Amino acid sequence: MYSQEELSRLCHQIHQYPEPGWCEFVTTARLVKHLMPMGLEVLTGTKIINPKYVAGRNLEQVNLFLEKAREYGVSELELKSFEDYTGCVAILKTGRPGPVLAIRCDIDCVEVSESTDPQHRPAKEGWASQNEGCMHSCGHDAHQTIGIGLCSWLADHRDELCGTIKVLFQPAEEGVRGARPMAESGILDDVDYFFASHIGIDVPTGKISAHPGCFLASKKLDAVFTGKASHAGANAERGRNALLAASTAALAVTAIARHGQGRSAVNVGTLHAGEGRNVIASTAKLQLEVRGETEEINSYMYEEAVRRLEGAATMYGCTLEILPQGEATEFNPDEKAILLAEEVANEIVGKENTARLHQPMGSEDATIMLKRVQSHGGIGTYLLFGSDLKAGHHQNLFDFDEKVIGIALRFYEALVSKISGVK
Amino acid sequence: MYSQEELSRLCHQIHQYPEPGWCEFVTTARLVKHLMPMGLEVLTGTKIINPKYVAGRNLEQVNLFLEKAREYGVSELELKSFEDYTGCVAILKTGRPGPVLAIRCDIDCVEVSESTDPQHRPAKEGWASQNEGCMHSCGHDAHQTIGIGLCSWLADHRDELCGTIKVLFQPAEEGVRGARPMAESGILDDVDYFFASHIGIDVPTGKISAHPGCFLASKKLDAVFTGKASHAGANAERGRNALLAASTAALAVTAIARHGQGRSAVNVGTLHAGEGRNVIASTAKLQLEVRGETEEINSYMYEEAVRRLEGAATMYGCTLEILPQGEATEFNPDEKAILLAEEVANEIVGKENTARLHQPMGSEDATIMLKRVQSHGGIGTYLLFGSDLKAGHHQNLFDFDEKVIGIALRFYEALVSKISGVK
Amino acid sequence: MYSQEELSRLCHQIHQYPEPGWCEFVTTARLVKHLMPMGLEVLTGTKIINPKYVAGRNLEQVNLFLEKAREYGVSELELKSFEDYTGCVAILKTGRPGPVLAIRCDIDCVEVSESTDPQHRPAKEGWASQNEGCMHSCGHDAHQTIGIGLCSWLADHRDELCGTIKVLFQPAEEGVRGARPMAESGILDDVDYFFASHIGIDVPTGKISAHPGCFLASKKLDAVFTGKASHAGANAERGRNALLAASTAALAVTAIARHGQGRSAVNVGTLHAGEGRNVIASTAKLQLEVRGETEEINSYMYEEAVRRLEGAATMYGCTLEILPQGEATEFNPDEKAILLAEEVANEIVGKENTARLHQPMGSEDATIMLKRVQSHGGIGTYLLFGSDLKAGHHQNLFDFDEKVIGIALRFYEALVSKISGVK
Amino acid sequence: MYSQEELSRLCHQIHQYPEPGWCEFVTTARLVKHLMPMGLEVLTGTKIINPKYVAGRNLEQVNLFLEKAREYGVSELELKSFEDYTGCVAILKTGRPGPVLAIRCDIDCVEVSESTDPQHRPAKEGWASQNEGCMHSCGHDAHQTIGIGLCSWLADHRDELCGTIKVLFQPAEEGVRGARPMAESGILDDVDYFFASHIGIDVPTGKISAHPGCFLASKKLDAVFTGKASHAGANAERGRNALLAASTAALAVTAIARHGQGRSAVNVGTLHAGEGRNVIASTAKLQLEVRGETEEINSYMYEEAVRRLEGAATMYGCTLEILPQGEATEFNPDEKAILLAEEVANEIVGKENTARLHQPMGSEDATIMLKRVQSHGGIGTYLLFGSDLKAGHHQNLFDFDEKVIGIALRFYEALVSKISGVK
Repeated sequence: MYSQEELSRLCHQIHQYPEPGWCEFVTTARLVKHLMPMGLEVLTGTKIINPKYVAGRNLEQVNLFLEKAREYGVSELELKSFEDYTGCVAILKTGRPGPVLAIRCDIDCVEVSESTDPQHRPAKEGWASQNEGCMHSCGHDAHQTIGIGLCSWLADHRDELCGTIKVLFQPAEEGVRGARPMAESGILDDVDYFFASHIGIDVPTGKISAHPGCFLASKKLDAVFTGKASHAGANAERGRNALLAASTAALAVTAIARHGQGRSAVNVGTLHAGEGRNVIASTAKLQLEVRGETEEINSYMYEEAVRRLEGAATMYGCTLEILPQGEATEFNPDEKAILLAEEVANEIVGKENTARLHQPMGSEDATIMLKRVQSHGGIGTYLLFGSDLKAGHHQNLFDFDEKVIGIALRFYEALVSKISGVK
Repeated sequence: MYSQEELSRLCHQIHQYPEPGWCEFVTTARLVKHLMPMGLEVLTGTKIINPKYVAGRNLEQVNLFLEKAREYGVSELELKSFEDYTGCVAILKTGRPGPVLAIRCDIDCVEVSESTDPQHRPAKEGWASQNEGCMHSCGHDAHQTIGIGLCSWLADHRDELCGTIKVLFQPAEEGVRGARPMAESGILDDVDYFFASHIGIDVPTGKISAHPGCFLASKKLDAVFTGKASHAGANAERGRNALLAASTAALAVTAIARHGQGRSAVNVGTLHAGEGRNVIASTAKLQLEVRGETEEINSYMYEEAVRRLEGAATMYGCTLEILPQGEATEFNPDEKAILLAEEVANEIVGKENTARLHQPMGSEDATIMLKRVQSHGGIGTYLLFGSDLKAGHHQNLFDFDEKVIGIALRFYEALVSKISGVK
Repeated sequence: MYSQEELSRLCHQIHQYPEPGWCEFVTTARLVKHLMPMGLEVLTGTKIINPKYVAGRNLEQVNLFLEKAREYGVSELELKSFEDYTGCVAILKTGRPGPVLAIRCDIDCVEVSESTDPQHRPAKEGWASQNEGCMHSCGHDAHQTIGIGLCSWLADHRDELCGTIKVLFQPAEEGVRGARPMAESGILDDVDYFFASHIGIDVPTGKISAHPGCFLASKKLDAVFTGKASHAGANAERGRNALLAASTAALAVTAIARHGQGRSAVNVGTLHAGEGRNVIASTAKLQLEVRGETEEINSYMYEEAVRRLEGAATMYGCTLEILPQGEATEFNPDEKAILLAEEVANEIVGKENTARLHQPMGSEDATIMLKRVQSHGGIGTYLLFGSDLKAGHHQNLFDFDEKVIGIALRFYEALVSKISGVK
Repeated sequence: MYSQEELSRLCHQIHQYPEPGWCEFVTTARLVKHLMPMGLEVLTGTKIINPKYVAGRNLEQVNLFLEKAREYGVSELELKSFEDYTGCVAILKTGRPGPVLAIRCDIDCVEVSESTDPQHRPAKEGWASQNEGCMHSCGHDAHQTIGIGLCSWLADHRDELCGTIKVLFQPAEEGVRGARPMAESGILDDVDYFFASHIGIDVPTGKISAHPGCFLASKKLDAVFTGKASHAGANAERGRNALLAASTAALAVTAIARHGQGRSAVNVGTLHAGEGRNVIASTAKLQLEVRGETEEINSYMYEEAVRRLEGAATMYGCTLEILPQGEATEFNPDEKAILLAEEVANEIVGKENTARLHQPMGSEDATIMLKRVQSHGGIGTYLLFGSDLKAGHHQNLFDFDEKVIGIALRFYEALVSKISGVK
């Protein structure tokens, strides 16, 4: 078991080497190095990631970080065991009959350049990001640290536990990309209890919520229009204008009517089209996303978006390719799981610090894992561990109150004891 | 044969009762009444109009003018002989071997309210339009008068002529609607020489041109989008927005790229959509037209327009109906026919008054008849008979110099003598 | 006081002669005829309607119904007292010190043609609408009946009451047009307690709610683009295309981004543009509306809509006129007023039939009156009186359970007694 | 004077080091090195380029090629004399009274990667482009060679000439950028005769045309929209969507109506907008161009484009910056100059090889120089020297028949003799 000081040091070490989604090679190698010696079963590669469902994976970026990982000292043997994919799952099989409990931690960073302001603690203390353009500014360094700490406790208390406990270290949560392929690997299909969590999110240190609000279902996609180039002056009639197709689609997708049954959202964030001023543009690419308060609303938004993209391609004689880039579903936690978690939270932080929250939040792909678990009869919820922040999530001055690591760890230890403790 | 004065009186009489395209019931009855007694064969109805190709025929308007025709005194027997369609063809079969010569006159009016200004000659002299909203402001009253005058001359000179001479009184030239169904009746398929003509068009009285410029090929169409209504506040997601489909189409159709090989044009002239402020619009209708310097360019414009209309319907989940409303093709007169006409024109008005013109003009559906004649080996051209105008064509003060009637008639008599005279 | 049977007969009489917003001349005359003899002060015209704020008033329609009113027998004297505007306010000044209480009833109909189905009660019993295209299919006939019944009770119980009681018969609630000019007359500025109500709305007979849900703030507007006509083939460059300006605006207005703080809605319901197929369209008119869960969201939607309309006009060199057509604000009832109403409702229908509702509804311009009252220190809420419906509001088979008239009347009598009863 | 072989070698040397517009530092240095020793006055920098009118100059690219020029051996002294701008003018002042004659050669390359196909002559013979991404695939290497050859001849024949002869080596003809700032330097304001020329253009070796067709007036511009970023899910209402402004503008600009008086063209070639999928896009950039058969039509197109860009910015609350990137005007050669050139051409290639051409071509900024000369009373035209091509202009296999160099040179020598020869 790690001391609070050791955990803090570990967290700083993780913070110093942030890796974006699907590029967490050094991160995964570090996890394996910590978890293996504990005597837990550690799975990597296609045992935990179903390649068919991998989305939003930028091959060029993956190769860059693979190269960096080699330079960092990750061995070819280790890399080979990853089978191209990052993330891992640590499993404690107690050998005693009992429930299967799964806890999910996410491990990727955000693509933000960390502040070099001397007031910024990581900069001042010398453990700021060494990967320019990458930063653990969402707190996934803490999530991993909590996960490693929990695994260590599991190993030490295996004799007091029954059933099976799985700790999932999920890659590519940013952009809601990693949960679906992990869920589709089947690793969750025997799970009875599922929990995921986040630190911070405007909730002060010392508070725990077992119903932190309303996550929106979401789909992220790229749309690529391919037309035909021609000289705009001499023979424009031979061209197929992908720029106009994309412009038309951007307007129409943004104009999808509000759903009468609840919140929805849509955004075309980027549009890049054309080869030159005097050429009918033959290519255009949109990056877009839709969201919905329910899976039904999200599906409505997605289907409308696709219909409009397809129609716009037809209008301008272009072909259209739609590339899925990530997804999350609605958040339907189980009352039984919430009550269970609240009971534990009451013990750890007191009843006055465990309120349920209901305001809308962004999207979380842990919702996909929860839905998978529920589809096999399991239950679960999502937990929020409060932590005072110096600056908001995804900002370059993000810094959190590390006390949350200890609080979260004590919570999870108590939760595991409650669910999986030998009676 | 009619005197100049009689022709003038006839022209005023025609002017007084203008009827729009496909509604020329009184007009056709009057033509028949004049032509029959001359001993010419007079064809009406489906012998000269192929219903399959009739476009831009507003049934409500047709019924209104049918009713007016009955009130005017046109008998049921006459109306029955028209088989719902207007226009007629007078044929002189000489019985002597010889060429088939066809001359086309158009008979419909423009939908303009005639000026009541006392300076306006028809108003002053008491023969202004009696049909509010309708006016012979394009000169088709003159065209008919010339045609009747020519038929009278043909009857009187039948012994000096050989072959066959057909005078076509075409309905619905405005909106380029009548030529196609008349050509598709087959009435022109044995024709060796074809001529059509117009008076006025910025050319002064006394001039004749056998190549009056460049007519643009054109297609007129209506596009009807049908979506699905729903309450905009309560359940907008159930609607299919035809208003947005039509708006998107209007922009995209207007944005069709210029063809590199010559002139093109496009216009969406009207858009009517929607049922109410708080309802997702379930219907929308566009009236549009495309043009091209050549048939190829016109086809490019038409196909692009249709593609964009269809794509816009797809985008918004609507169905689309495209209703053809009229068409004209490019103008490719035969040099031999031009020379022949110029030879005659030189005799009538002198060589200095017979220049060829090359500037672009609007569209004329006589081009479709000419093309049909050419496809069977015939030749032809389009003639312009100059006439000083008080105001431009289609204006409510339009008035022309009636001397042109006599000039045109003498020209046509000489032309017929040249082509069909017994040698 | 009227018996239940008399009220029913009165309601049928009102039902038979429905008049649309700003056209309620016969309706207002009938009200005055009932209220005057009761000894109440009855105000009409600009004393209760501030003409500066009148919106969505179709002058052509007003003149048509004025004419019909004359034919119906409304005297010139009566019409003169209306000063062009419909609606009236009945006032009981008790002469005793006490609060000012206001109750609002709306009196206009919906523009729907009533069903002639013999199963439809009004048709079967012979009191269906005599004004083709107009129908009391929203229940404002019941609202008026309740208002008249209440006035009668007030007159009979004036000795038991203190302070002042105003019953507002508001014109033009459909399209949320009448409340603003009535509020701007100042008639509400001394009011301490304000209540408005609706029957039906999916709530069964016998239930009363003093918090029936969430009304959306809304603005209705027409946008008129004026460009310049020109011939689309000959000199399109001289035109200013109002059709394209309107199409561009329609798309952009529908594409206003969702507000992050709550529900919003927008709809461009109709678009009419253009003069003819081959003319650059010089005029276009849009009918649109925006909505928002709060006044802030509604203002955001409105300002964005106006910005986009203006920009679209600029793009195409057109001028833009924006014509306000109606408005409502958010619903912020006072807890004290709700509790007061619930106390009364509990007495009338029992506690089990008085639940508060929270789902979003459409828009109601009584919200503007309530806001005005609150701005002067008064309080109020909106009441829902359940009534079993044969068909939904605004449908041509709409029919409600008339028991609601008696229930609402008893409720209002008890409410008035509670607030304005002599203690 | 150079031999044909020397000229060929010089042309290959130039071919090997192509530089794009405003980056012709090595090119200009080479020109100066050749021209200076001939005893001609050679002007560079702001004497021949008015910086105020420089457009389409990519500073980053300029700096890159400055650095390459230093590496290539161009001295700081030389670079300093250029005052940041490329191009030069060689002047022969004979000292004898006589006309001022100007001949313009353009010197920049196209941004195309030259083919490495061993069949491609430059590749086979070892003088292909050494600047990856740059290629003299338009023939400006030949234009320079002809210019240098002509200067050499001028120097050798200075005693037989009178007046002044200027040879302008213009930078940045691609994108029609260089002529305006050169004309605005005033260098042409005393010119009596002006000629510019091009080789190739689908005309075979041995032909010369003194009226090669119709150049379109044109304006190139970039439009930069600046909005405001915000999170698309949490607070989209705070954003100002530059992507939608640009999309709307792209559609509207492409939809500018055809001018009734002649050819026009427009293209939005590229659109780049946005920062990320879930961010309201705060920046967008369009590259576009308009063209017109006449300056009036071009101005119409430009003004409409600007109006629509501005309106689109207004619609979405964005600011707009319009950056001019180049321009050309219509082609109005002087009949006197054409006849003069045809007289010379007849001598060199025979009358049968000197036809005038009338089809539309692209745009040429020499038209701006010609217009400037004409505005001061001078005359001129544009010449076409036929040359058999292996592949079309701007293609990576472009190669021309070098015989044209000798033909053009002999033509220009005879033309100079005719205009500036001592009589």
